[in-house]
Amino acid sequence: MTGTDFQNKKDMLDARERANFDITQIRNFIHGGKNDWDAHHSIVQIMSNDPTFDKSLRVYMSRSDRYKRGLKMMNRIIQLRDEYSWSPAQYSKAVGLADEPLPLNLHDIAFQPVFMAQASPELLKRFGKLIESRGIVGCYLQTELGHGSNVAALETTAIFIPETQQFEIHSPTLTSTKWWIGSLGLTSTHGVLQAKLILGGKDLGPHLFLVPLRSLIDHSVLPGITIGDIGPKAMNGYTAVDNGFARFDHPPHAKISYGGMLYIRSSMVTSAGWTIAKAITIAVRYATVRRQGGKDSQGLENQIITYPSVYYRLLPILAHAYVFILLGRNLSLAFSEMSNRLASGDTSLLAEMHATTSGLKVLVTATSTHDIETARRALGGHGFSAYAGIGRIYADNLPSVTYEGDNYLLDQQVVRAAVKAYHAFTNSASSATVQLTPSTNYLRTLVFHTSETSFDWNDSKDVVRLLQTRAAKVVQQYARQSENLDASADQRVSRAVTDAFVAQQVQTFISALSGELPGRESLVLTDLFRLHLLTVAESALVDILSFNLLPTQKDDLKRSGEDPTWILRAEIKSLCLKLLPQAIGLTDAFGFTDWELDSALGVSNGDVYKALWDAVQTEPLNKTHISEGYEEYLKPLLERSQRYAAKL
Amino acid sequence: MTGTDFQNKKDMLDARERANFDITQIRNFIHGGKNDWDAHHSIVQIMSNDPTFDKSLRVYMSRSDRYKRGLKMMNRIIQLRDEYSWSPAQYSKAVGLADEPLPLNLHDIAFQPVFMAQASPELLKRFGKLIESRGIVGCYLQTELGHGSNVAALETTAIFIPETQQFEIHSPTLTSTKWWIGSLGLTSTHGVLQAKLILGGKDLGPHLFLVPLRSLIDHSVLPGITIGDIGPKAMNGYTAVDNGFARFDHPPHAKISYGGMLYIRSSMVTSAGWTIAKAITIAVRYATVRRQGGKDSQGLENQIITYPSVYYRLLPILAHAYVFILLGRNLSLAFSEMSNRLASGDTSLLAEMHATTSGLKVLVTATSTHDIETARRALGGHGFSAYAGIGRIYADNLPSVTYEGDNYLLDQQVVRAAVKAYHAFTNSASSATVQLTPSTNYLRTLVFHTSETSFDWNDSKDVVRLLQTRAAKVVQQYARQSENLDASADQRVSRAVTDAFVAQQVQTFISALSGELPGRESLVLTDLFRLHLLTVAESALVDILSFNLLPTQKDDLKRSGEDPTWILRAEIKSLCLKLLPQAIGLTDAFGFTDWELDSALGVSNGDVYKALWDAVQTEPLNKTHISEGYEEYLKPLLERSQRYAAKL
Repeated sequence: MTGTDFQNKKDMLDARERANFDITQIRNFIHGGKNDWDAHHSIVQIMSNDPTFDKSLRVYMSRSDRYKRGLKMMNRIIQLRDEYSWSPAQYSKAVGLADEPLPLNLHDIAFQPVFMAQASPELLKRFGKLIESRGIVGCYLQTELGHGSNVAALETTAIFIPETQQFEIHSPTLTSTKWWIGSLGLTSTHGVLQAKLILGGKDLGPHLFLVPLRSLIDHSVLPGITIGDIGPKAMNGYTAVDNGFARFDHPPHAKISYGGMLYIRSSMVTSAGWTIAKAITIAVRYATVRRQGGKDSQGLENQIITYPSVYYRLLPILAHAYVFILLGRNLSLAFSEMSNRLASGDTSLLAEMHATTSGLKVLVTATSTHDIETARRALGGHGFSAYAGIGRIYADNLPSVTYEGDNYLLDQQVVRAAVKAYHAFTNSASSATVQLTPSTNYLRTLVFHTSETSFDWNDSKDVVRLLQTRAAKVVQQYARQSENLDASADQRVSRAVTDAFVAQQVQTFISALSGELPGRESLVLTDLFRLHLLTVAESALVDILSFNLLPTQKDDLKRSGEDPTWILRAEIKSLCLKLLPQAIGLTDAFGFTDWELDSALGVSNGDVYKALWDAVQTEPLNKTHISEGYEEYLKPLLERSQRYAAKL
Repeated sequence: MTGTDFQNKKDMLDARERANFDITQIRNFIHGGKNDWDAHHSIVQIMSNDPTFDKSLRVYMSRSDRYKRGLKMMNRIIQLRDEYSWSPAQYSKAVGLADEPLPLNLHDIAFQPVFMAQASPELLKRFGKLIESRGIVGCYLQTELGHGSNVAALETTAIFIPETQQFEIHSPTLTSTKWWIGSLGLTSTHGVLQAKLILGGKDLGPHLFLVPLRSLIDHSVLPGITIGDIGPKAMNGYTAVDNGFARFDHPPHAKISYGGMLYIRSSMVTSAGWTIAKAITIAVRYATVRRQGGKDSQGLENQIITYPSVYYRLLPILAHAYVFILLGRNLSLAFSEMSNRLASGDTSLLAEMHATTSGLKVLVTATSTHDIETARRALGGHGFSAYAGIGRIYADNLPSVTYEGDNYLLDQQVVRAAVKAYHAFTNSASSATVQLTPSTNYLRTLVFHTSETSFDWNDSKDVVRLLQTRAAKVVQQYARQSENLDASADQRVSRAVTDAFVAQQVQTFISALSGELPGRESLVLTDLFRLHLLTVAESALVDILSFNLLPTQKDDLKRSGEDPTWILRAEIKSLCLKLLPQAIGLTDAFGFTDWELDSALGVSNGDVYKALWDAVQTEPLNKTHISEGYEEYLKPLLERSQRYAAKL
């Protein structure tokens, strides 16, 4: 063992000792309680000891082999489900722990929920249990080659044939080909399909149909249907998923319902939180043991996490992970309540849920994508190695910014809801009588003012109010300017409104912490949440300055030279320095094993250089001493060039 | 042909007709004149008709096959070089047109230039021609597993042995292993190596050595050296390059010189410009033919490029491509002049070149990475297909933000130079007597003021002055606060200083245009450069507002509601709308062929859906009707689950 290797492990042990709180407490809290952690941990143990879920060679596999490995893992998970009598939640947990999108994922997140919510009682009786058990596996066919978000413009037709009482599904054009459909290319036996319903020659708009796609005997594609895989994805993301295309030539099918589709985006908040958690655990660990640059008090080079440009990038990301995980948990509860009420015909919570989830979907997917890449860059040159593990997380997370509603389209929905709420609020005889929901509560700041002099960056309630005031001002400006909007106005409003909503939620987390955790654990999370609020305020500075909302005391301005934003930046730095000794503890509290992280730079014991060295020994290019291609290409190149040199 | 396919091509033809300028004029201008365009075009013709450079199947290849294909292309380029008597510039052009980093790239950009600049006359005589011809091929061994940018801390040693007058190269620890070295893993016969020179037991710091690595007879690794490939890179970037590691066990070698290394970053500006040009050509073309959402005056869905959220994202990127290409051209000229002066012992231009290239390296790599991803997202869901081509460009461009000096470290160098210049300027008896260089010219605004009321966003000189004033204020603030800096202060200063430098250069481009191009061509580029300046000002709003630099007329403020930044945003929108009809022409003027772009969404004729359809026919997963893995994994999964369903 060399000095540096030993130092790596020592740095990690020292960092763990610096945490001034009980990691177990926060770990259980962030996992939703000790029972949930134990359940999670037992599945991790089962899977990480099963060779089916070994990850060490996947980086070298072709797409075809990755797909096959995906099926193998799914088959094993189904076996384990039966062996251990896993609940649906435990099954989902296992699928998530496979650590990449798998061929059956679209069954779980789209085919089954849409079918269960929309199917007629007869279809439910006939197919419900088979779908629940995965005895048939399905996909959700909406997007076409020529159309995505604009469901009304889909071209696929379903013509009612009175003689047979069936519907003929047809793809009239190349652009009507269903495209991007997850699990369709090679896997699905069935699908739920969106098509224009044509009744007696009349176009009744998009409706849903249950469509058998492949034989249950030999998996061959059924007559009248052409299916294939749509090819590899950018940066090798979603490698094991068979996103597919399908064209229909008048095959007959049953219709499942007349209803529209309910979009479920709430689960994306939780998963964004845990995805960020993985990336930041890798980054904080590596930045703790990587030493570079000037010398510290012991004569060693500084740990890179001690540099302002590093901790200022990483610690807010750590805060995002905690915030999104808790936010997602609340949203899931709210979603369940809304679903229960919907089942009894009560639609009162629907509009609020739509407004909230649209903005949050944009925020968490844009933030997670940005954070993952920021964490990767903080690793320096080694971050570009596939063994670092963050590139893979990025590539699989990347489509989230454009799928399930392109973020720029969702911004428009957030804006529409915000402007509507603004007019309702300002048009009412007394604004105080308008019912404000959590998503519109920021409008309150248009009428209730507090004295500016009482502002304190250390008081999270003040920061939340500032972000609410900023949202209200931006929405007001948008509503007043409606004829003269600039080109990025939608994005500005959407971000301001969502920031205000999240800030308010974070304030409720802070208020609840002392009742949920012991003193030191509660305090460290309070600091983390305050860092979140301050960095959101920093990102909102253009708006805050434009509307003259920046609260500055005269002596602050004196301290800061001429720059009124300096005091906020200085608070952020001081909070970062306070949190720095807790960083390893706060990442350890996510509870990831090395198998889950699959990163040479994120190994728990800090021995990163040994882990990189061990990883390169598995590279197939290193199997031969002279590379393939030398005799055929490199040798003639060198010989030709040597002759050329002789003539120079 | 379906209606939509026809419409795609028509949309593209219509867009071309809307250009009000002669594309040939601007194409020749951006390529450096008609001769340079002709030379470029003839190489494109030769290569695109040669099956060696076919790109259609590379997306399915393993890394091993991509490496082999890389060697094959290099071998063919060397043959073509001899056949057509290509100059070094034409050879470099051909290597660039191979459209991905190749196994010999590090010879060209590091091994050869460092050797030529540093080697002793004897070594130059012995190896110069062989290196120039590629009769031996080399790499540059600096980075170690444990150390990157901090050259002083490298661990590899070179101990002088008086008996043999040679140097023994040795890797004393695991972390001293040379790592990330491009072209080392499988290809290089030689290398230039950085090691600590030990003379009579005394450490004299890093020096350069020429090290033979592999036999010129059979390519076997020489005794005392262990070499291998460091494995795959994130997101499949740099796939064909054999970045490698090497450990040395006391092999003896000759030293090449005592000098340090001169970093060459100027070429990165030009290449960032052309890389952005590719991505934006693909995005503008697809956004022109993709129709989605509301209906236009002909009853067709709108072309997505007509949406503010799309053109506002894309047109500034188009401006960056033009700006960086011209900026890179000037920088290369300046670099040549500096090199010539250096050769005659004149170091007067060195400091300025260092300051300029550090900041520009950060700016162009951060901007290009961000722009490529922004262009990809503007493609919506299809942007995540590998056939879209932008993911590949992103992955190969990505390491530029951390290699050749991590951007966060280079920021510190920019800041150091800026603060030094500030003190020199303010400490001089009369500021007017201080010699300001192009990189420090913005400091002039600290003493010369113009009246605020004369400000006009339409006057590029005013915008440049605003960006200069902002840079001066930010540097001044930094210098005054030196004891109390916040955590992102370096990044803020570096960006402000570099923005001011580039803005000033852009102003010189604008002034020169009318002499270089006819009227309409000159006007359209002037608009594009103005868009660049305005969007840079928008990105600088926090600083501009903080230091109270925003020039606002009272009637502007009235028009804009309460928001003083609205007038700038409105100008940007109006300039975008003016440029929109020219967008296809301005991307056509880059002169890319379909072979160069290799993108189904960027095809020149606009027939994007047919191109996507044709591409998926090449996917190996579509070769069999029933997928591999069905019998072994999917069938048992379904059967087990069907039994399970029966028990539900």
